[in-house]
Amino acid sequence: MPVSYVVALDVGGTSMKGGLVTFSGEVTVFPGRPTGRERGPEAAVATIRSYVSELADAGSRSFGGAPAGVGLAVPGIVSATVALYSANIGWRDVPVSAFVPAGLPAVLGHDVRTGGLAESVFGAGRDVSDFLFLPLGTGIAGAVVVGGEPYGGANGWGGEIGHTPVWPDGEKCACGQRGCLETYASAGALTRRYAARTGDAATAKEIVERAPDDARAAEVLGDAVEALAISLASYTLLLDPSMIVIGGGLGEAGPVLLDPVAERLAARLAFREPPPLRQSALGVRAGMLGAAILGWRAAGQPTWSPDLVL
Amino acid sequence: MPVSYVVALDVGGTSMKGGLVTFSGEVTVFPGRPTGRERGPEAAVATIRSYVSELADAGSRSFGGAPAGVGLAVPGIVSATVALYSANIGWRDVPVSAFVPAGLPAVLGHDVRTGGLAESVFGAGRDVSDFLFLPLGTGIAGAVVVGGEPYGGANGWGGEIGHTPVWPDGEKCACGQRGCLETYASAGALTRRYAARTGDAATAKEIVERAPDDARAAEVLGDAVEALAISLASYTLLLDPSMIVIGGGLGEAGPVLLDPVAERLAARLAFREPPPLRQSALGVRAGMLGAAILGWRAAGQPTWSPDLVL
Repeated sequence: MPVSYVVALDVGGTSMKGGLVTFSGEVTVFPGRPTGRERGPEAAVATIRSYVSELADAGSRSFGGAPAGVGLAVPGIVSATVALYSANIGWRDVPVSAFVPAGLPAVLGHDVRTGGLAESVFGAGRDVSDFLFLPLGTGIAGAVVVGGEPYGGANGWGGEIGHTPVWPDGEKCACGQRGCLETYASAGALTRRYAARTGDAATAKEIVERAPDDARAAEVLGDAVEALAISLASYTLLLDPSMIVIGGGLGEAGPVLLDPVAERLAARLAFREPPPLRQSALGVRAGMLGAAILGWRAAGQPTWSPDLVL
Repeated sequence: MPVSYVVALDVGGTSMKGGLVTFSGEVTVFPGRPTGRERGPEAAVATIRSYVSELADAGSRSFGGAPAGVGLAVPGIVSATVALYSANIGWRDVPVSAFVPAGLPAVLGHDVRTGGLAESVFGAGRDVSDFLFLPLGTGIAGAVVVGGEPYGGANGWGGEIGHTPVWPDGEKCACGQRGCLETYASAGALTRRYAARTGDAATAKEIVERAPDDARAAEVLGDAVEALAISLASYTLLLDPSMIVIGGGLGEAGPVLLDPVAERLAARLAFREPPPLRQSALGVRAGMLGAAILGWRAAGQPTWSPDLVL
């Protein structure tokens, strides 16, 4: 008897992660691969479609039939049916059907918001309906979760917390603005700012580890902590979230990062309690697991929410 | 034949505005009166209830019957049925029934969010569903409108944009934090900061008018404009609104304030267009007109949306 499953894909700017997820919540993760964006947007679309086909073939062999649906988390501006624009990959107005073999129902989602959806349905935010999902990676963007669903604003450009100004006359950001959160608190910022002080190309993880014994690592990490506290104070006052879920590669640093951010956030708020800070439950797999939720929506199962077997 | 109408009340910290609004949209505005909060929260509740009674009596005489419902916009933390907390008035957990004569259906709303609801239903935001309503008064708070409804966050503490930090190490705010938007851009801040420089107790309106010919007025107004631009840049990046609606007493300054804010907002955003800034269509009556919407909800008319006859 065939097992019901979906194909789930998290497409980043440079690489993508794929998986198969059964209705009962069993997850099979496949090796990632490059998107091939350097060969142009059409090649990237073809690469994604062929990866989806391979995963569907693998699923047919394992589970005895075609997938029930496909979910794809992609960067840029996106509706459920069209990848409207990505500065990173260069595509415009690509219909979801272009990403999948003919006949498979499929749904698209925004990469960071799809990660937020996964944290909302079966991650750190599963018991609340209003929170911020903030993955700290090479860059920073967030998913504003409202009533259990990530909110992209009027036209899908929302969630760009990484480019909100924390010190409005601060350091120049690659985006052209000054003092953006991302300029101080992304993994990329830690690496760049530490290298500028020391000439040492340490990773963000190494910088966090060195901070107790290395004044320049401590300085760079301290700026990141303060920038996060300022930004999260604004978010809290504006949107009163039940919690803040920190994810991404840098988020995996855990309490050594989250504890001082929580302390500085409380210090920045005078007349209200801060929301609790939680580490992402799903880590760097949040986007792929959110894509599985989209795949089940494509398959006509909008309330799918099993206990995952990772 | 009796005319169907509701009683609408906008309760501020120090005074309240009341009106009668018919189903077809005719608005009768009554003289405001003090809340009497200096005599304690119970006296304030009694004052409100007696004002509602008087308005209902006036309505009976004009329209030939009891009101169909009562809507009340109140400060603090509030649900549709309970005024949970107001630091300003001092009450806790007051049921909506305490504010109205027995037998009248009534609904409560948050003061600023109720103004945002009115701008959404028949004001500057009537053609869009996602925007910020930002009344600039003695203080500053906003209504984050999502999908046509003001959003208060997980526990109703949202919208406190006046206390988001624009210059995190800036001037001390009365709230205990530093560099809050309200410290630079409220009518109260203009008055206080201009008086500190000149000893002259000019009103915010006078300071705006003097700015072209008075360097210290221009400096104070310039800081307010820049603070608004920084704060609205963050809002735009985070929530991607269709527009920003500026209201309140200071918002009535119009283009002399809005044009430079729009220019500085555009300058603060590098990789996206700014949303348009619009002046409130309803001005200082937004709260009372929003309360009329709540009154019609209490009366079982949740989609009430006439052309207003002011």
